[in-house]
Amino acid sequence: MGMVGGGIGAFIGGVHRMAAALDGEIELVCGAFSSDPEKSKASGAQLGVSPERVYGSFEEMIKQEKKLRPEKRMQFVSIVTPNHVHFAPAKMALENGFHVICDKPLAFNLKEALTLEKVVQKTGMLFALTHNYTGYPMVKQARMMIRHGELGAIRKVLVEYPQGWLSTHVEASGQKQAAWRTDPTRSGIAGAMGDIGTHAENLAEYITGLKITELCADISTFVPGRLLDDDGNVLLHFENGAKGILHASQISAGEENNLNIRVYGEKGGLEWRQMEPNTLIVKWLDKPTQLYRTGGGQLYPEAQAHTRIPAGHPEGYLEAFANIYRNFALCIRARAEGKTPDPVYTDFPTVADGVRGMQFIESVIGSGKSAKKWIKI
Amino acid sequence: MGMVGGGIGAFIGGVHRMAAALDGEIELVCGAFSSDPEKSKASGAQLGVSPERVYGSFEEMIKQEKKLRPEKRMQFVSIVTPNHVHFAPAKMALENGFHVICDKPLAFNLKEALTLEKVVQKTGMLFALTHNYTGYPMVKQARMMIRHGELGAIRKVLVEYPQGWLSTHVEASGQKQAAWRTDPTRSGIAGAMGDIGTHAENLAEYITGLKITELCADISTFVPGRLLDDDGNVLLHFENGAKGILHASQISAGEENNLNIRVYGEKGGLEWRQMEPNTLIVKWLDKPTQLYRTGGGQLYPEAQAHTRIPAGHPEGYLEAFANIYRNFALCIRARAEGKTPDPVYTDFPTVADGVRGMQFIESVIGSGKSAKKWIKI
Amino acid sequence: MGMVGGGIGAFIGGVHRMAAALDGEIELVCGAFSSDPEKSKASGAQLGVSPERVYGSFEEMIKQEKKLRPEKRMQFVSIVTPNHVHFAPAKMALENGFHVICDKPLAFNLKEALTLEKVVQKTGMLFALTHNYTGYPMVKQARMMIRHGELGAIRKVLVEYPQGWLSTHVEASGQKQAAWRTDPTRSGIAGAMGDIGTHAENLAEYITGLKITELCADISTFVPGRLLDDDGNVLLHFENGAKGILHASQISAGEENNLNIRVYGEKGGLEWRQMEPNTLIVKWLDKPTQLYRTGGGQLYPEAQAHTRIPAGHPEGYLEAFANIYRNFALCIRARAEGKTPDPVYTDFPTVADGVRGMQFIESVIGSGKSAKKWIKI
Amino acid sequence: MGMVGGGIGAFIGGVHRMAAALDGEIELVCGAFSSDPEKSKASGAQLGVSPERVYGSFEEMIKQEKKLRPEKRMQFVSIVTPNHVHFAPAKMALENGFHVICDKPLAFNLKEALTLEKVVQKTGMLFALTHNYTGYPMVKQARMMIRHGELGAIRKVLVEYPQGWLSTHVEASGQKQAAWRTDPTRSGIAGAMGDIGTHAENLAEYITGLKITELCADISTFVPGRLLDDDGNVLLHFENGAKGILHASQISAGEENNLNIRVYGEKGGLEWRQMEPNTLIVKWLDKPTQLYRTGGGQLYPEAQAHTRIPAGHPEGYLEAFANIYRNFALCIRARAEGKTPDPVYTDFPTVADGVRGMQFIESVIGSGKSAKKWIKI
Repeated sequence: MGMVGGGIGAFIGGVHRMAAALDGEIELVCGAFSSDPEKSKASGAQLGVSPERVYGSFEEMIKQEKKLRPEKRMQFVSIVTPNHVHFAPAKMALENGFHVICDKPLAFNLKEALTLEKVVQKTGMLFALTHNYTGYPMVKQARMMIRHGELGAIRKVLVEYPQGWLSTHVEASGQKQAAWRTDPTRSGIAGAMGDIGTHAENLAEYITGLKITELCADISTFVPGRLLDDDGNVLLHFENGAKGILHASQISAGEENNLNIRVYGEKGGLEWRQMEPNTLIVKWLDKPTQLYRTGGGQLYPEAQAHTRIPAGHPEGYLEAFANIYRNFALCIRARAEGKTPDPVYTDFPTVADGVRGMQFIESVIGSGKSAKKWIKI
Repeated sequence: MGMVGGGIGAFIGGVHRMAAALDGEIELVCGAFSSDPEKSKASGAQLGVSPERVYGSFEEMIKQEKKLRPEKRMQFVSIVTPNHVHFAPAKMALENGFHVICDKPLAFNLKEALTLEKVVQKTGMLFALTHNYTGYPMVKQARMMIRHGELGAIRKVLVEYPQGWLSTHVEASGQKQAAWRTDPTRSGIAGAMGDIGTHAENLAEYITGLKITELCADISTFVPGRLLDDDGNVLLHFENGAKGILHASQISAGEENNLNIRVYGEKGGLEWRQMEPNTLIVKWLDKPTQLYRTGGGQLYPEAQAHTRIPAGHPEGYLEAFANIYRNFALCIRARAEGKTPDPVYTDFPTVADGVRGMQFIESVIGSGKSAKKWIKI
Repeated sequence: MGMVGGGIGAFIGGVHRMAAALDGEIELVCGAFSSDPEKSKASGAQLGVSPERVYGSFEEMIKQEKKLRPEKRMQFVSIVTPNHVHFAPAKMALENGFHVICDKPLAFNLKEALTLEKVVQKTGMLFALTHNYTGYPMVKQARMMIRHGELGAIRKVLVEYPQGWLSTHVEASGQKQAAWRTDPTRSGIAGAMGDIGTHAENLAEYITGLKITELCADISTFVPGRLLDDDGNVLLHFENGAKGILHASQISAGEENNLNIRVYGEKGGLEWRQMEPNTLIVKWLDKPTQLYRTGGGQLYPEAQAHTRIPAGHPEGYLEAFANIYRNFALCIRARAEGKTPDPVYTDFPTVADGVRGMQFIESVIGSGKSAKKWIKI
Repeated sequence: MGMVGGGIGAFIGGVHRMAAALDGEIELVCGAFSSDPEKSKASGAQLGVSPERVYGSFEEMIKQEKKLRPEKRMQFVSIVTPNHVHFAPAKMALENGFHVICDKPLAFNLKEALTLEKVVQKTGMLFALTHNYTGYPMVKQARMMIRHGELGAIRKVLVEYPQGWLSTHVEASGQKQAAWRTDPTRSGIAGAMGDIGTHAENLAEYITGLKITELCADISTFVPGRLLDDDGNVLLHFENGAKGILHASQISAGEENNLNIRVYGEKGGLEWRQMEPNTLIVKWLDKPTQLYRTGGGQLYPEAQAHTRIPAGHPEGYLEAFANIYRNFALCIRARAEGKTPDPVYTDFPTVADGVRGMQFIESVIGSGKSAKKWIKI
């Protein structure tokens, strides 16, 4: 694995590295950890990467690595930069024969996303997007229960992603994570709706297996001086007639990272909360509520396969993130060995999910500015 | 107390009676328990009401009771009939000098509600509406914390009222509670939005002290054959610029009576859930989350005054309902004795709350049918 | 109902009155509310009892009421005094033909308890003891699940009753509730173990249907100056070979009234917590955990019958307490009418439970002082 | 790192490897993964270890690795075998100049443990014992709050470790994990009390900073045919006069891995549950309960330092386990570089904790067989 971004002081780069390392199957062999070559070098040294494979730019990394013998060179690129630096390294990596795993949202805007989708199709390389929350075992269990019809036809979906860390104007204080996420030149047209709203959208569509067809959004910026949205409330229509609500917020003071979803069908409902991810609450019309648990003996194979330890030994955010990396790596290896990977392990978000997310961003921000009630997505 | 409605087989009538009885201060002395005189008689007998004061109609009850000596006759009327039989007994009782406590929503439509409001003003009688959820101590604590500015300016309000009991076409099976609630000739223009949506609206305005100024609603009827809405998702704007979401549903399969609210201000947020009503979760921007508890030593007097037993001895729905009755009775007694009641105990929902609820119903159902995004309330 | 004790400033007297009033079937007609006749009079006036039936002593009450015509006089006596004033009024009431409902523990010591048991047997009067926690619907559900073998043979029982309100020497400050409970001349040989330990013992035997046969206790007084125990940890052996732990404490700082029980059998376990009494958690060896809920549709008739309102409308401490009163009253009425009461409603703690509690107190305090490991109960 | 044990099919070996890998600082370079050389080879191949460094026995591994140049050879040995194969490899590794990290309990019996302690002292090598639950950030927060006197003097400690996986005679079915844990020739004199009881004992002493001085145990074997204890209830006395209860069970049907602890002091209490490890509940005598959270801004540096991701991104069992490995590795590196490690990172269980655990096992099993009430530890 070669990494683009994720130098000293970054947050998500470290997460990607731990997720990649957990199963002992992926090695960080090179990187362009910063657009500042000195900083990239320092970061590489700290991470134990051989100095000759710490590069000053992603262009250099891709070019130089390509020159190495296949068994020596990086097998894929991990892109962990802010949104405006997803497109260029992803496109160049793909076109030079490297698989890509990229942080979300896919790109700076929908146009870039659509272009990337074409590049992936054309090159045939593997592309994963780290909508990491779909890596949780109980999210997979929820998806399989719905797919197998256990809840009946879906009628209502409530998906929420409240955070509180942008309740004040922290970007003015130089907080690095806040700075780029609230900066339209680096983040794109959306703030909260891009950063976390897309996770909510992705989770809802992943679990229900249903596409959002139209939406009606109320988008706000509460903190004075902020340049992008920090809160949004959205009504949803799904393709099968189900209705829903999505809200995402970074000014819900006191909330940590409270992504959660509830889905109701004709026969029952389910509830999953990221902050207590090992329990899936299943409510029935005519039976007592059940608590399905990570590692429990009654799960679908798709859920079982993404657990590493026995029930009651809590798994968390990094393990779910690692599931995306592991499946991506297994698929790369299967392809290298000319094998068909076990379908239970081929499940990771792709460029199509990324395009979907960018469509959601454009629709939701557009709706927020529109007096029209319903906007198609 | 004289009761209109609440005969054998009714649900909410029994609740009103238990709520009234709990503190040993209110006695059921007469009633017109059913529009069917035989059934009224049977109900009265079962309830231990003297046969001569069991009436065949509310008109008869009001007329006959008025003839009794003041110290003997009922002091107020409790109306626990379906929505279409609120207006007439309430108006007649008020105009004949009886105070009235009435189940919600106030009336069959807004016009009736506005008329009743005028009658209350004109007669000067006391009028309580049983938006009983405001009777919970921790709801009062939430209101006082916000009123005292503990959360700072309010930015976001999420209020939900999911139930699942109408997930199937139960009204077709003769279930009495379902039958009238889904019948436009008895319930009015709204189903779920009137029955429980108004509770959510009332709770949000009560706790925040803020009025909803406009809304955007997505109103649905999921169960085939049903004549009124059984689900609604609503975006809210509040007078101070706060944004919100309200949803109410009777097809959220597996949900019992899950009214809950979350409010976020600049400094923190709070969360209250009716099904675990003795805990108020308060989340802070920069401090650990706190759990305020019914009966705990750190509450505002308004919360303390509505608790009957020590912390850790759970109080429930009936106790909260009883708080409405007790305050109503205390105010009646204070008036009879020419005293000013302790302000801590004067808090109960009034006809104004009822008018507000009917306005909400008209706006939300109107919005559901409109292609316009925002509708004023 | 005539009451002994429960005058102004008392706690449990008010609870008994609310519990008795809730269903509108029991009327407080007389009382000896205090051993101080003036205070008794003032209390009676405040409670709306006719002045001529407010008595200066329980002896006077029993004598005078007996002189009234049967249909006029009180039908039973409710004893809500401190422990040392249970025996005399109970005995006198029973021997004069009045049924008795008495607060727990049954008496000041085992000897009194055994005498009372004989008086009950001899007089044939009804006697209820307010081990009120057995009045909760989900406690009855737990009992019935075990009785029907759903958990298999019981192996382990954990019952806890932690409170924190005696963490400091509050009895020195004149706090009335603390004063008598920590006073050996009024409370008996036990403090916490008598006041709340007996509730835990009763709950464990009620739910499991198993008797404790021997125990090993570690009894402590943590607060300097206190005269009775304020904490106890006890190992338990049950008649069928099951093992268990009971602990009760009034110095568990920060705990409110956290009575709870867990029972494990060969096939599964269950857990009930008084502070969230409407949920019974049932854990299975090979199935997802289930949440049984008050008012839910899957309960045994014994649990269903002790619920007043639909699922999701929380019931609490007073409702459970009221179930004891209601069943006691139904049995009195059935006897008066020469009928056999519905067995579902005959369930309330009796004098035998009271004797059992006093045996527990003597054994547990004895064990605490003994170097011997196991003490028979 | 060189590993002893942990071949294909093992459970805890995989946990150690993931924990070691997470931070990208420890590399598995060699191993004697099984006492069966063929199986060791196969395991090594699967784990990507160079074939020439996959050894047929720990003796061979230690000898051969010692011959390699210092910068090439393994720096420490990780022992993940059943209890009866802890002592020999640990002793040999230490005496040959390798640091050791070893699974718990420390040894097969107390005698081995005391010998190992001397070897550690004599050789001066570093020794870590994976009482992994002390690696959780909120466990460290609990310890620091008590150490800083926030709860006042400690009065009561309740520590529990219920599991249900041995509710039936699974060892008869060939389940590998059950087989050795219930076999006295591999596990030692204790079953549940050794396997998980020692974790509970370690957690209680770690958090409170207090030693258990005497205990009174009720030890049981519920499952017919089982050779070792599967349940134990223990009364505890602590050095400062605090009282406590410890229970550990593997027949608590329906329980997963529910280690938890509650500690009460004069001013408040705290509660931590391994299955929801990111919340520390702190209850106060006179203030609302607080929820301290992993990653929150109000934690002691010792808690902060053992978190990898922001609050609300749940961390789990592997992250806590990894904290033991990381601290151990940091101390090895600091020693190699002649530096003093940051004291915040020197915290891991040592051979002394292991000796303590073996003393606990001997005392608790001894007490279980004794008619004497209190046994010194």
